[in-house]
Amino acid sequence: MNINENIKKLASLDQHLYHNDFLLTWEKTDDEIKTIMEVAKTLKAMRAANISARLFDSGLAISNFRDNSTRTRFSFASAANLLGLAVQDLDEEKSQIAHGETVRETANMISFLSDFIGIRDDMFLGEGNTYMREVGAALDEGFAQGVLPERPGIINLQCDMDHPTQSLADLLHLEHQMGSLDNLRGKKMVMSWAYSPSYGKPLSVPQGIIALMSRFGMNIELAYPEGYELIPEIVDIAKRNTQKSGGSFHINHSMEDAMQDADIVYPKSWAPFHIMQQRTELLKTADKNGLKSLEQSCLANNAKHKDWEYNAKRMERTKNQDALYLHCLPADISGISCKEGEVEAHVFESYRIRTYLEAGYKPYVIAAMMLTNKFEYPAETLFQLIENKKKRVGF
Amino acid sequence: MNINENIKKLASLDQHLYHNDFLLTWEKTDDEIKTIMEVAKTLKAMRAANISARLFDSGLAISNFRDNSTRTRFSFASAANLLGLAVQDLDEEKSQIAHGETVRETANMISFLSDFIGIRDDMFLGEGNTYMREVGAALDEGFAQGVLPERPGIINLQCDMDHPTQSLADLLHLEHQMGSLDNLRGKKMVMSWAYSPSYGKPLSVPQGIIALMSRFGMNIELAYPEGYELIPEIVDIAKRNTQKSGGSFHINHSMEDAMQDADIVYPKSWAPFHIMQQRTELLKTADKNGLKSLEQSCLANNAKHKDWEYNAKRMERTKNQDALYLHCLPADISGISCKEGEVEAHVFESYRIRTYLEAGYKPYVIAAMMLTNKFEYPAETLFQLIENKKKRVGF
Amino acid sequence: MNINENIKKLASLDQHLYHNDFLLTWEKTDDEIKTIMEVAKTLKAMRAANISARLFDSGLAISNFRDNSTRTRFSFASAANLLGLAVQDLDEEKSQIAHGETVRETANMISFLSDFIGIRDDMFLGEGNTYMREVGAALDEGFAQGVLPERPGIINLQCDMDHPTQSLADLLHLEHQMGSLDNLRGKKMVMSWAYSPSYGKPLSVPQGIIALMSRFGMNIELAYPEGYELIPEIVDIAKRNTQKSGGSFHINHSMEDAMQDADIVYPKSWAPFHIMQQRTELLKTADKNGLKSLEQSCLANNAKHKDWEYNAKRMERTKNQDALYLHCLPADISGISCKEGEVEAHVFESYRIRTYLEAGYKPYVIAAMMLTNKFEYPAETLFQLIENKKKRVGF
Repeated sequence: MNINENIKKLASLDQHLYHNDFLLTWEKTDDEIKTIMEVAKTLKAMRAANISARLFDSGLAISNFRDNSTRTRFSFASAANLLGLAVQDLDEEKSQIAHGETVRETANMISFLSDFIGIRDDMFLGEGNTYMREVGAALDEGFAQGVLPERPGIINLQCDMDHPTQSLADLLHLEHQMGSLDNLRGKKMVMSWAYSPSYGKPLSVPQGIIALMSRFGMNIELAYPEGYELIPEIVDIAKRNTQKSGGSFHINHSMEDAMQDADIVYPKSWAPFHIMQQRTELLKTADKNGLKSLEQSCLANNAKHKDWEYNAKRMERTKNQDALYLHCLPADISGISCKEGEVEAHVFESYRIRTYLEAGYKPYVIAAMMLTNKFEYPAETLFQLIENKKKRVGF
Repeated sequence: MNINENIKKLASLDQHLYHNDFLLTWEKTDDEIKTIMEVAKTLKAMRAANISARLFDSGLAISNFRDNSTRTRFSFASAANLLGLAVQDLDEEKSQIAHGETVRETANMISFLSDFIGIRDDMFLGEGNTYMREVGAALDEGFAQGVLPERPGIINLQCDMDHPTQSLADLLHLEHQMGSLDNLRGKKMVMSWAYSPSYGKPLSVPQGIIALMSRFGMNIELAYPEGYELIPEIVDIAKRNTQKSGGSFHINHSMEDAMQDADIVYPKSWAPFHIMQQRTELLKTADKNGLKSLEQSCLANNAKHKDWEYNAKRMERTKNQDALYLHCLPADISGISCKEGEVEAHVFESYRIRTYLEAGYKPYVIAAMMLTNKFEYPAETLFQLIENKKKRVGF
Repeated sequence: MNINENIKKLASLDQHLYHNDFLLTWEKTDDEIKTIMEVAKTLKAMRAANISARLFDSGLAISNFRDNSTRTRFSFASAANLLGLAVQDLDEEKSQIAHGETVRETANMISFLSDFIGIRDDMFLGEGNTYMREVGAALDEGFAQGVLPERPGIINLQCDMDHPTQSLADLLHLEHQMGSLDNLRGKKMVMSWAYSPSYGKPLSVPQGIIALMSRFGMNIELAYPEGYELIPEIVDIAKRNTQKSGGSFHINHSMEDAMQDADIVYPKSWAPFHIMQQRTELLKTADKNGLKSLEQSCLANNAKHKDWEYNAKRMERTKNQDALYLHCLPADISGISCKEGEVEAHVFESYRIRTYLEAGYKPYVIAAMMLTNKFEYPAETLFQLIENKKKRVGF
């Protein structure tokens, strides 16, 4: 990659990411999506070339994980560190938050000297993204009232609706594997449900994927057993995007069928939309018996679809018997991480290293979201960093 | 605020904060209190002006929280980061400390490359401040014996006696709201007990407030239901301070009465001194039944004083029906965070943003304690930082 | 210490630590051991002289503690911070690792922007060091396949076989106390089992000590009650080392006898090799009853050897009644941390400060392992740091 060409490309994009939170890809223009991508690639190339991207002499990035996480936690920490920020975890169990603090108070209390808050909240359908906006509104008020010296940016590290740092990492991987975004035009991409022994996996990945990938002229096939619907409004966004971009959008209830001539496949488990709605209600009222019985009925229903595994037989139906396999990881690999899962072991193994490469874009996507939130002219900013010639390691 | 004028004011103060721990405000002279205030304000202004306050190229600030905390934890992390230090938590559950290590050994083991240890220990009356001094004595020995290359400074992040980072933040807020410290002279400030459904809240805030605020010529009214005494020695300090500063000190057992013509009010729950003494004994012997029955009798006693709520009726009695309301947060707000609490919801709401502004001084107070502990001439140090013109963010 | 002389000594050593993990001292040459020592001493002297050793403008050091730890955790954090790296904990309970991720996937996921992974895994005999090598192999693959921009170095923070950061800190302490490594020649060092009320203490310290200390011409006496064997292969390494270095190696089943004319003593509890093997099997199968009964029989057996305490009587038999006492800390001190333990209280007290000095080398040993892993010519690197004259604190 030629860093200077990337920066030129960047300078030509029309974007308003400065001082705006990154909460949903569909709130961003194509130029804004491309800005994140070009900044991410530039930062990745700079890291490989030992050029420091330290833009903050000091500063804090707060992480608020309301669900377990390894890779997103490390991606966030890596992005913050790359730019010079220290990470401070908001651990809601250790803090006094459980003791009745309101969101707006806590949001201000943790932000007096903070530059970013990264939030992961994907447990409650209808709540995660709303929570992020509540935090945002509290920060707006705090900044307007002089409580905060600046308005910290919010990074969506996964909510109930979207997982933008994941889908953008996936898109960068696709661009690299296919040679260019233009090469995606006309390609068939299958976002498919797959069986997993676990229950209640978030909808944000499939939703994020169809909403973002539909912008590039691809033929999107969304496949799932009847009943495993996604949030309808987000499916509509994907449909409109394909219409606008010259692609197509289909829903298919046969994995077999869906895979026919696919260029790209993304087989992954998720919980049905209406189940997640019920689950949210039960979680809110802490109804343990209700949750238990919902889990059991959902697992029983899942078990009817154990044949939704991505295996050699399905792979053979794809383009050249070699569709590019995507996954956000960790995958439920049959015979490895579980008895029966999303993907056959030797199929996964063929694409394993490529799934690692896919994941490797995420820290840079987060860093790009941070950089563009705080620097209005990212092309100039990156240019200056490169001119400075400060090494990340050594003299 | 004019940064250069602040720095001039600083240079004229006579202080010996260098290499001395900050454990109790009443061990510090007026000039030392003012030094912390001027340094804190300067650092706050520098942060707002994007001037880096990074004085440490590397270094560690250890946090030792023996009780839950959100805001103090973030304030400590923010202060450390502002000066260039990384925070390392001493998590006593995860460590081997429970396995019989002595305080003096652990104090040295965590300090080989540490610059500061921030300690919060407010659970045991008669123990928290003592613990900090034990740690200090261990560090003195380690430094004297060549174990440690320097003597890490200790920051009291709340003990059983005082909460100096809180009271100094409150004082900075008062100075700002009233225009100057001189304007405090003759003002009536009410530190009042208030009802809370929880039990065993520390005494350190009311004690810290009366001991510090009594230095500035105010008329201090300490109000509480009979039986809710504070540590007598600290009440004596407050009395002596008001005599010396030309103010007055009264104890009042009627909230109604106390609020009459008040300029400033600080309604907050605390546990009675003698209850905390009993509690400490029970905690030491891990007497669960004893703790349970103490809690029940104490809650029953508290419940007799539910009318000690700061509400519109009380507010109307204050000066211009608008006394400045202070709180260390989180407040127990009636109808919001609990059914019946310390303060009526719409009264709190009128002062909510100001309580956030109040809290916003704490990170800078901690940073000022750090800076003055390690830099003998803070005016010069700050002047050099400003001359350096290094930006915190960007080039 | 003369920093420049140290650096000259360094430049003359033949070593290949660059890009090689530090997993076992016996995989390293004498010159490599000396390189770590000289770098560690130089960094310690620089820290004392307020010279910044910041070689990383940004970067991450991952800590993966599979067992509790205070001192090693703080040593790792201190070392990372000294060089400019931020620490990110891999907390396997909070992460999704428990959900069936493979080691090789996780190793890559946490390493996209990481410089080091420090691992402590001493619970399972036959597993800890193997785990480190599995992580290493995964990182090798990730780097070879372009997943990782560099190969993070692995630091062994204690495994089932060795505890190299401990034994090297101990060696630096010995060198300092005895005046030089040459002065160790002909000295008698006793690595002795000692009674502790706890069970299942790792073998890595005694193994690490005999394997390293046997290189310097000392007469090594390994003392333990019959049945408390160490891993035989490591005892063989120690034997061969003494033969090569002109020392001697004996096993003794009487603590009394072993102490006769000792110059240096290291009395410390450990679990018998064959018990640890059984324990590993039981831990693997999560056999709680088996573990319970093993613990009981082991404790009962331990209790037969309560007389294996290092006390005044034993100390009197040593050279000049004053053999240098070593311990990795925390020691089980009779009457202090337990009723009956490894060492008599007033004996420990005589050497207490020296055990702190001993422990104080560990952060610099870790920093030296990091520096030599990433900088091929450490003498030049250190020379440049000193020439740069950047202060760690202040201007």
